[in-house]
Amino acid sequence: MNTRIYNVQILTMEEGRKRIVGEVWIEDDRIVYVGQPRNEENRKWDLEIDGEQNLLMPGFKNAHTHSAMTFLRSHADDMKLDDWLHKKVFPAEACLTGEDVYWLTKLAILEYLTSGITAMFDMYMYRADGARAAQDAGFRNVFCESINDFGGTIEQVEADYLTYNQDKSKLISYQLGFHAEYTTSREKMEGIAALAAKYKAPVYVHCSETKQEVEDCKNRTGMTPPVYMDSLGLFQYGGGLFHGVHMEDADFDVVKNRGLYIVTNPASNLKLASGIAPIKKYLDMQIPIAIGTDGPASNNCLDMFREMFLVTGLQKVVCEDPEAVPALEVLKMATVNGAHAMGLTECDTLEVGKKADMILIDLKQPNMQPMQHIEKNLVYSGSKQNVKMTMIAGKVLYRDGEFYLDSSRDEIYREAEKTVRRILGE
Amino acid sequence: MNTRIYNVQILTMEEGRKRIVGEVWIEDDRIVYVGQPRNEENRKWDLEIDGEQNLLMPGFKNAHTHSAMTFLRSHADDMKLDDWLHKKVFPAEACLTGEDVYWLTKLAILEYLTSGITAMFDMYMYRADGARAAQDAGFRNVFCESINDFGGTIEQVEADYLTYNQDKSKLISYQLGFHAEYTTSREKMEGIAALAAKYKAPVYVHCSETKQEVEDCKNRTGMTPPVYMDSLGLFQYGGGLFHGVHMEDADFDVVKNRGLYIVTNPASNLKLASGIAPIKKYLDMQIPIAIGTDGPASNNCLDMFREMFLVTGLQKVVCEDPEAVPALEVLKMATVNGAHAMGLTECDTLEVGKKADMILIDLKQPNMQPMQHIEKNLVYSGSKQNVKMTMIAGKVLYRDGEFYLDSSRDEIYREAEKTVRRILGE
Repeated sequence: MNTRIYNVQILTMEEGRKRIVGEVWIEDDRIVYVGQPRNEENRKWDLEIDGEQNLLMPGFKNAHTHSAMTFLRSHADDMKLDDWLHKKVFPAEACLTGEDVYWLTKLAILEYLTSGITAMFDMYMYRADGARAAQDAGFRNVFCESINDFGGTIEQVEADYLTYNQDKSKLISYQLGFHAEYTTSREKMEGIAALAAKYKAPVYVHCSETKQEVEDCKNRTGMTPPVYMDSLGLFQYGGGLFHGVHMEDADFDVVKNRGLYIVTNPASNLKLASGIAPIKKYLDMQIPIAIGTDGPASNNCLDMFREMFLVTGLQKVVCEDPEAVPALEVLKMATVNGAHAMGLTECDTLEVGKKADMILIDLKQPNMQPMQHIEKNLVYSGSKQNVKMTMIAGKVLYRDGEFYLDSSRDEIYREAEKTVRRILGE
Repeated sequence: MNTRIYNVQILTMEEGRKRIVGEVWIEDDRIVYVGQPRNEENRKWDLEIDGEQNLLMPGFKNAHTHSAMTFLRSHADDMKLDDWLHKKVFPAEACLTGEDVYWLTKLAILEYLTSGITAMFDMYMYRADGARAAQDAGFRNVFCESINDFGGTIEQVEADYLTYNQDKSKLISYQLGFHAEYTTSREKMEGIAALAAKYKAPVYVHCSETKQEVEDCKNRTGMTPPVYMDSLGLFQYGGGLFHGVHMEDADFDVVKNRGLYIVTNPASNLKLASGIAPIKKYLDMQIPIAIGTDGPASNNCLDMFREMFLVTGLQKVVCEDPEAVPALEVLKMATVNGAHAMGLTECDTLEVGKKADMILIDLKQPNMQPMQHIEKNLVYSGSKQNVKMTMIAGKVLYRDGEFYLDSSRDEIYREAEKTVRRILGE
């Protein structure tokens, strides 16, 4: 399959490279040309897309989510975290089947596509069904292992690591991880650390999301969660912390010294009243930051535009500094850094040889006018409504409001509603 | 002109009324029927709209903005407020003509329509041109007087008050106000107070947006801005404060005792690092709150969905309470309260006799699925992409991505770009 996208402004997101006006050629799932308009008369195209001078850029990477939690959207808002988890989320999740997860993941994928998200770093149960959903839909999924004391064995983790990282041509890959320090025994964490050492692999985990979590860990171990987990050898090959809201000095050192990514989830941290992550400090320390939506039960929206504005807006107000976290840094977090955090080194920029994961942004919407600074417009003013096209691995999955998946939008909605009615009785 | 919108879920926003499934009939600019499907065979319709079971609700009211500042969108972000104002905003504004304001206001109107906003409480210069823009476009505009020491006389204010409130059938009306305590002499404020007394009219003003503003006023007058302004008799007939971020105990009393509205602008307050308004406390005191986007130079987006999420999300995190400011309260702020704050008592709900200012929300987008709690979905997960139709005074101005104004979208963009190039040289 050969595709040509022409008459576009291209934001390659390569370091130091400006926007160029030209075209992008794609063969199968890879980019084979990025540059000035070029005429090769003999070349045959399966698909030619007139970009109408809109903006072509790498897709956003959702670097932390629990996709199948779509079934809990708006089920339990405006509640204390404890009640929310124990009275609403856990009992409902206990009723889920793999088939439910298949459809609920697809529902999340629809929303990702509308927001220009081309890959998810997904942490959820029923992995085989989640993988099937992504593969069937054509969506790129990096699993994050979520073993904890309620489920999972180290043997299973190793098996999954090998299974899902086997075939690099597929849309699915897998990273080591576990749910959180507060839900996982020392023994299991040491098991993960051993696997990390064996495979020289990074490890990802929920960390320092709430004040309580940090206090409890200190009471139990005498250390903060990052310091404690580091002492178990978990981060010898890097990895990342999801949230990283309540951090002490020693924690910044762990993150910096181990080369960890911080994956920030600002909307979820607001909605659950967890706090505001110290993004400016991370930036000042040159710690790489990526962005996640977190799951739709806590956010409740899978929208990278909202997250991008929050990443910078919240820092400005917290630091009392309108210069904090400039827009271009945020755009990098949502694209390049996200890809790197998830191990998707071929999905970060629009360059020859990279995977064709890209989006077309509608600059003809009033929120992008006037077009003085397109990158700033994206971060400060962009919305889902600006996503004209989302392409993953060279395939157009969403264009002008229509989805091109193996199942129809309505079928996915119907199946999700069935699950909701069965489990929540609503 | 008779219009029938059928096959819709109707969220009337009347106190205590649930959603109903049915239809809405409109004659000219007013609602004449809201209820169950009804068959009147003899009735002739100029326009029938199949709502496809989507959600019909009152349009959002943008209760504080400076519309024509669209030309400064992304011109000067990530800057200190002082530099921003004095080096970027003021010099650029000094070059504006009335014709510029006409087109720049229309650009803002396009964006309002995409966000389901059906009325603006607009504070800007070249009022005649702003009025012409709104009237030509078919958009509802309530001017807020912005007299200050750099421009305006009390005589002109009275003349405008009479002119723009003369013809109630028009889309334009006008409220007394002034820019701010810190930009307006005591003499001018007393002049406004005298007009308020003469016409028994409310008064609106920027107030307590930044810490510095409050400190300066206390140093000058020994009082906080609300207390000082109240001592001048400005709020005898009510009115409202834009921002209300940095409030002391006595200020809450002024607001409560004078029946003032608070118009909150959370995105602007973040981006300019001004602070986070004490919305939960206002709510607890039963002080009515409305929502504004502020101008596109400080926000930079004219998007009520983003503002709605911020109103509740920020309170949850600041109050460390996920129960703070429930979604339904926010929806009321963005619709009913906004209308009342602006004096648009006929534009608040969908009831017989009210003005036909309404929007159709696309529930078939993935961010609205599953449909367990539509109102919560709107606040926590809604986006511009959900706005299928925006109707003002019975006229469809936006539907399925197309605008129906007197000028084309492209003409408006061209004229705005001309202004940008002339003034900013970009």
